[in-house]
Amino acid sequence: MEHNHSNHLKIKSIGIDTYRENIIYMRHDCHVCLSEGFTALTRVIVKYDGRDIIATLNVIHNTQLLNHSEAALSMEAMRRLNLKEGDLIEVLHLPPVESLRSVRAKLYGQTLPSEAYQQIINDITLGKYSNIELASFIAACSDGRLNNEEIISLTKAMVHSGQKLSWPGIVVDKHCIGGLPGNRTTPIVVSIVAAAGLTIPKTSSRAITSPAGTADTVETFTNVNLDLETIQKVIEKEGGCMAWGGAVNLSPADDILISIERSLDLDSPAQLIASVLSKKAAAGSTHVVIDIPVGESAKVRTMEEAVHLKDLMMNVATAIGMNLDVIFTDGQQPVGRGIGPALEAKDVIAVLKGEHDAPIDLRDRSLKLAGRLLEITGKAKAAGGYQMAFNILEKGEAWKKFQAICQAQGRFTEPVIGEYKYDVRCDHSGVVARIDNRRLARLAKLCGAPQSPGAGILFLSPLYKKVNPGDILYTLYSQSRGELDYAREYLNANKNTILEIV
Amino acid sequence: MEHNHSNHLKIKSIGIDTYRENIIYMRHDCHVCLSEGFTALTRVIVKYDGRDIIATLNVIHNTQLLNHSEAALSMEAMRRLNLKEGDLIEVLHLPPVESLRSVRAKLYGQTLPSEAYQQIINDITLGKYSNIELASFIAACSDGRLNNEEIISLTKAMVHSGQKLSWPGIVVDKHCIGGLPGNRTTPIVVSIVAAAGLTIPKTSSRAITSPAGTADTVETFTNVNLDLETIQKVIEKEGGCMAWGGAVNLSPADDILISIERSLDLDSPAQLIASVLSKKAAAGSTHVVIDIPVGESAKVRTMEEAVHLKDLMMNVATAIGMNLDVIFTDGQQPVGRGIGPALEAKDVIAVLKGEHDAPIDLRDRSLKLAGRLLEITGKAKAAGGYQMAFNILEKGEAWKKFQAICQAQGRFTEPVIGEYKYDVRCDHSGVVARIDNRRLARLAKLCGAPQSPGAGILFLSPLYKKVNPGDILYTLYSQSRGELDYAREYLNANKNTILEIV
Repeated sequence: MEHNHSNHLKIKSIGIDTYRENIIYMRHDCHVCLSEGFTALTRVIVKYDGRDIIATLNVIHNTQLLNHSEAALSMEAMRRLNLKEGDLIEVLHLPPVESLRSVRAKLYGQTLPSEAYQQIINDITLGKYSNIELASFIAACSDGRLNNEEIISLTKAMVHSGQKLSWPGIVVDKHCIGGLPGNRTTPIVVSIVAAAGLTIPKTSSRAITSPAGTADTVETFTNVNLDLETIQKVIEKEGGCMAWGGAVNLSPADDILISIERSLDLDSPAQLIASVLSKKAAAGSTHVVIDIPVGESAKVRTMEEAVHLKDLMMNVATAIGMNLDVIFTDGQQPVGRGIGPALEAKDVIAVLKGEHDAPIDLRDRSLKLAGRLLEITGKAKAAGGYQMAFNILEKGEAWKKFQAICQAQGRFTEPVIGEYKYDVRCDHSGVVARIDNRRLARLAKLCGAPQSPGAGILFLSPLYKKVNPGDILYTLYSQSRGELDYAREYLNANKNTILEIV
Repeated sequence: MEHNHSNHLKIKSIGIDTYRENIIYMRHDCHVCLSEGFTALTRVIVKYDGRDIIATLNVIHNTQLLNHSEAALSMEAMRRLNLKEGDLIEVLHLPPVESLRSVRAKLYGQTLPSEAYQQIINDITLGKYSNIELASFIAACSDGRLNNEEIISLTKAMVHSGQKLSWPGIVVDKHCIGGLPGNRTTPIVVSIVAAAGLTIPKTSSRAITSPAGTADTVETFTNVNLDLETIQKVIEKEGGCMAWGGAVNLSPADDILISIERSLDLDSPAQLIASVLSKKAAAGSTHVVIDIPVGESAKVRTMEEAVHLKDLMMNVATAIGMNLDVIFTDGQQPVGRGIGPALEAKDVIAVLKGEHDAPIDLRDRSLKLAGRLLEITGKAKAAGGYQMAFNILEKGEAWKKFQAICQAQGRFTEPVIGEYKYDVRCDHSGVVARIDNRRLARLAKLCGAPQSPGAGILFLSPLYKKVNPGDILYTLYSQSRGELDYAREYLNANKNTILEIV
């Protein structure tokens, strides 16, 4: 189309957050819609100052919202184009996205060559796929529809789609599949293996649907919004770091796909493996240990599934030149006692300090993971890793390293628990027979977690514990009276399903 | 959740058209978002006055757009709840949609029982599926993943999802798979078979991406926005009608699925068959003829594909007790000469009037279809349908019936062609070797079709025609000077790809 002169519109800021999908709002009777024949849901290119994004059109029929020469963009789209009110954008037709042919071919059961995955992932990274196109790609990859070669192609494509970090020598990392509430092994593992002299530039995510992500927890005692340069300085000085991954652009296609997978609640081994291993490879990791919690309410429900996943992962790791070890852990209940950023941080610090009442399960999991990392990197001899990690923790070396890393990241401050609390007590004696992790997480969120870092739950009733009338089952914490009241209202309606005592 | 008192918000009308997906706009800091933990893309229930819909949340960060106690809905959602500015809505969490389990099971390769399809289609009809969930269901049904039994289940589920019409005795219908430009056989077929005494309550669609839908064309000479009562009166009186299907709620799940299939450009035989046959069954049709144009740029590209589709269709038709016949026609180029509502209507009327220069291809196709309908209903003897239809047309009975139906629908008026025109002439002699139907359609839309019913193209250069310098290849028509100029600009840049003369 050669009508650039007539395709300009002035940006008005209307502040609508559509999450990752770019939406452009244009009047149905603006000259661009009329002349180009754009209607609701047309996919268009939006250009500004040498950059461009692809957006989906929402048509505006309200004459007060926009005038004839104006358009608006969703917030993320504004940010991507670095736009402010009054800037002049250009709106053009989107030429067909060629890689969608490959997605259709995959839906028709064909095996795709490596280049097809690279093109698909490139286009996804460039924002060329609408949410429904992303959903169709995810569906096309579901249920073992990708063979080994294809999973490898997909992983490699994701590695190459974003920033790549590189470090001298051996670089280790750990990952837990489908996180358990309270499973904050990361700061402990980082401290132990960095104390042993390994390099571990760890990045973690913030909570999206849970009451706390690792980055939220770490932020209660140190800074996590580190740019690449700061991460490099911290690593040079201390060998380990605990940063928020959002500041580093590793495997951006994966972030886009994950948001759709989550809404579809669709687990595909291919996507899972490509997702995890591409992030690790892009971060420059050479030696990685993966923790797969297995349990009825965990992401991986049976040992059979877990073993299948492990086999696929080992295959892909070999193909991309990564040393990988996979361990299986108990995935039946929350780990530690805290649920919520500061409460989980308290557990972490108790383990690192070697306090006598520190959560045993959190310590044991951390030692297992650290031990494996020490073994696969040759720091410890076979089967000697757990003991070596135990010694580092016992001698206080991990605690020292932890504080040094925090200082290198800008501060170490004690996590602060919310001042409002409410004890939930047992009203009959019995044994804890079932824990509804989902409702427990919801309760912690109603207390204010993770936005209020001091909010959450201190959980004192693990499975099979014997309890008596008057015992504290768990305590709610919040930073405001209103949030605590709101959580208690939910508690009253759900108490007996959150915890079953028989 | 037992907090209804606090989940009310006042509606503000902001006029955003998101097509079929319900979107609710709420401030990130409104009390409902804060207390319920709603974030961007949360799926919620919106209640008003005993009705409810499901909507996807877009979070607003602009304090001028909404105040703390306000929310806004997309236009279609406003209409569905019959809302106006100032009304008080209630916003609640969406409980999990159970039928999505079946969609995931299908993605995992399982065969679903009949009830599963009924539940899926019910939930889709109720608007419970987000666009990405719809995309995953469509992907799950793609490429022969549904067996015969499942296609039958899907079709039956769609039939039961909406309104069902019923008529005494035999009721006929026709349908063309993946429409060709200008293929307006409907008014001609309706007139012929109604003149022969058959009942044909025909509903058609408007254009979505093309320069004219059948309903747009018919509207240039009579009214098409008929409610069910009017349709019944017209049928009682004349035996046939030509109404817009949008006013009748037949197979509503199909309308929702089609909008997503179109954006995905994903053709699945299962969805196609269920879509077509469910609409016909819900309309009460007992005898149906399907036209499958076969050609490189048609929906069905090869005879092999066409035969496979026919076999599947015959199977499903038998299962739902419908008499079906399928014919294959040439799908290589536009039918008739007009492209655009009024121009296509002119062709239709020329055929009905028996004008000597009426388009032969349009007449022949109409006679074939009408002939088959006369045969399968026993009005004509085997192989005698074409001749019978021919006689009805020749004697002027179809033209008389056509005018009577138009009058019963409220008016018969001559279609009016746009007053601005531009002849595109040949500059070298040769033979028409290739026609780009897609660019031709785009050119007609730039002229103003279908919004301006008189706009479009009169196409005079069918395949293999010999042309000389100065010959008119086609003429552009529009209702405004500006649109004609705009179309000519596009023409100048694309003339040689629209038509190839060698």
